[in-house]
Amino acid sequence: MTEPEFLTLLRALPLHPGALGLSDDAARITGSLVVTTDTLVEGLHFLPEDTPSDVAWKLLAVNLSDLAAKGARPVAVLLNYPLSDGAWDAAFVAGLSETLRAFEVALLGGDTVSLPSGAPRVLTLTAFGEDRASSSAGVRSGAQAGDALWVAGNIGDAGAGLRIARGETGPPELLAAYRRPQPLIAKGLALAPHVTAMMDVSDGLLIDAARMAAASGLAVSVALDAIPLSDALRAFDPDPLTAAVAGDDYALLFALPPAVIPPVPAARIGAFSAGTGLTLTDRGASIPLPDRLGWLHTPPA
Amino acid sequence: MTEPEFLTLLRALPLHPGALGLSDDAARITGSLVVTTDTLVEGLHFLPEDTPSDVAWKLLAVNLSDLAAKGARPVAVLLNYPLSDGAWDAAFVAGLSETLRAFEVALLGGDTVSLPSGAPRVLTLTAFGEDRASSSAGVRSGAQAGDALWVAGNIGDAGAGLRIARGETGPPELLAAYRRPQPLIAKGLALAPHVTAMMDVSDGLLIDAARMAAASGLAVSVALDAIPLSDALRAFDPDPLTAAVAGDDYALLFALPPAVIPPVPAARIGAFSAGTGLTLTDRGASIPLPDRLGWLHTPPA
Repeated sequence: MTEPEFLTLLRALPLHPGALGLSDDAARITGSLVVTTDTLVEGLHFLPEDTPSDVAWKLLAVNLSDLAAKGARPVAVLLNYPLSDGAWDAAFVAGLSETLRAFEVALLGGDTVSLPSGAPRVLTLTAFGEDRASSSAGVRSGAQAGDALWVAGNIGDAGAGLRIARGETGPPELLAAYRRPQPLIAKGLALAPHVTAMMDVSDGLLIDAARMAAASGLAVSVALDAIPLSDALRAFDPDPLTAAVAGDDYALLFALPPAVIPPVPAARIGAFSAGTGLTLTDRGASIPLPDRLGWLHTPPA
Repeated sequence: MTEPEFLTLLRALPLHPGALGLSDDAARITGSLVVTTDTLVEGLHFLPEDTPSDVAWKLLAVNLSDLAAKGARPVAVLLNYPLSDGAWDAAFVAGLSETLRAFEVALLGGDTVSLPSGAPRVLTLTAFGEDRASSSAGVRSGAQAGDALWVAGNIGDAGAGLRIARGETGPPELLAAYRRPQPLIAKGLALAPHVTAMMDVSDGLLIDAARMAAASGLAVSVALDAIPLSDALRAFDPDPLTAAVAGDDYALLFALPPAVIPPVPAARIGAFSAGTGLTLTDRGASIPLPDRLGWLHTPPA
């Protein structure tokens, strides 16, 4: 079963009001308390040869990125951890310690299990954030026709980093973007009061832009030539289409009324309009969509 | 690495005040909001041949049992789910729907992933409960020397049910105790204002009693002959020692001052005293401890 099919089934269950119809990456459990959860699977979301401390970093960072997109300040996390060999576990905790301190977040609790021998590691982290403004802005469904689409943070670095982790030759900053993504917490806090919709780019810029448009009941156009690429990526692989479907960026994608300038550095990459679907342009000319807009969590065949 | 070793490492991390030093099954994220999380692994916490709806029931019930032990009313849950074949996934959601409605709990959000082909299912659920009294009673560390140890709910039925699920012949009510454990939510709410310590029995009565004593800085004695066994279990296997180390009971284990009678049906099975460790008696005579007090989550060799 695919993720969209599964979500359709789940939406028929009794839903908490803070679930927002399961349309978002985070939920509101009380007025100011936001919660998000992500599971990483060895071999799918990280490589077996990634270091335990990089895995710990990524597990925390991907969740904090979801909080950043809500304009929420991270407070505490729960960890569901599969025990394995002692050296890996100890290195993971050391990495988690470093990461918690880097982002000023505290451990609240969790659960440990063992896995059958040879099973891939499956790690879950749940993060709680405080949104003092109780803002309704940090949802993906609020974009309005006429709003501009913006992105804060570069696109494609992590995708290039994955290729480097798998053996291609490239610069360390791209590898670092894959192994140690940086959740844009301060930018999220600054943007939240202004945006009409916001989400983090986790599965690919194009698929996530299409999701924001669909959740808002709108069409969206994206200008490929406006997508922000780092100098390192331009030197490694300058194709913006490759970057736009790569995923793992943890940039912030947001909608603003057309006259509003964001309070943090960001690139204006598109616009919302009445209708449905995603269109792509390159230097003003319409171009066809690629076969794949990003990552979808479908089961292996 | 073992769970106690891992917890020792985790306790050196920045801890949230509501983590209670990672000494408990649940944590307090805000004044009245309690959170708990449990992961179930196919082949370890449930059998591959268990039905998806029974797995959904168990995943929710084991978490709600932790909330019951805090005297918290369940409110909402997060689900981290590995997608697999469509029939299993659909049956799981149908079972989850039934279980959420049975316990009047709502879905708040979650995450879906895919697993590599052949990997065991790993399911995580995180449950939120509201403790309007903001009681500090529902912790395992509050027992006082002289307190009596009580248990509400029968012991050993689920352990016998597991043996029946694995092929032994026995009555359906024992199998049901393994497959559809009943979190004692109403009993937990009634007990919370009175107890000095409370926890649910998940890994085995003896190991969990020893944990409550250790967390409270006390010794505890347990009278084997006072452990409540169902009629069905007495007919299947009347050995209270087998029952006391079986686990999966989801009974409530609690401490009360010696003169206090609990407001719900319960059995007085022991007492706390100054010192450390666990002692066992049978009809007044001291007996040796078994080699194994319950389940510990240690990695496979």
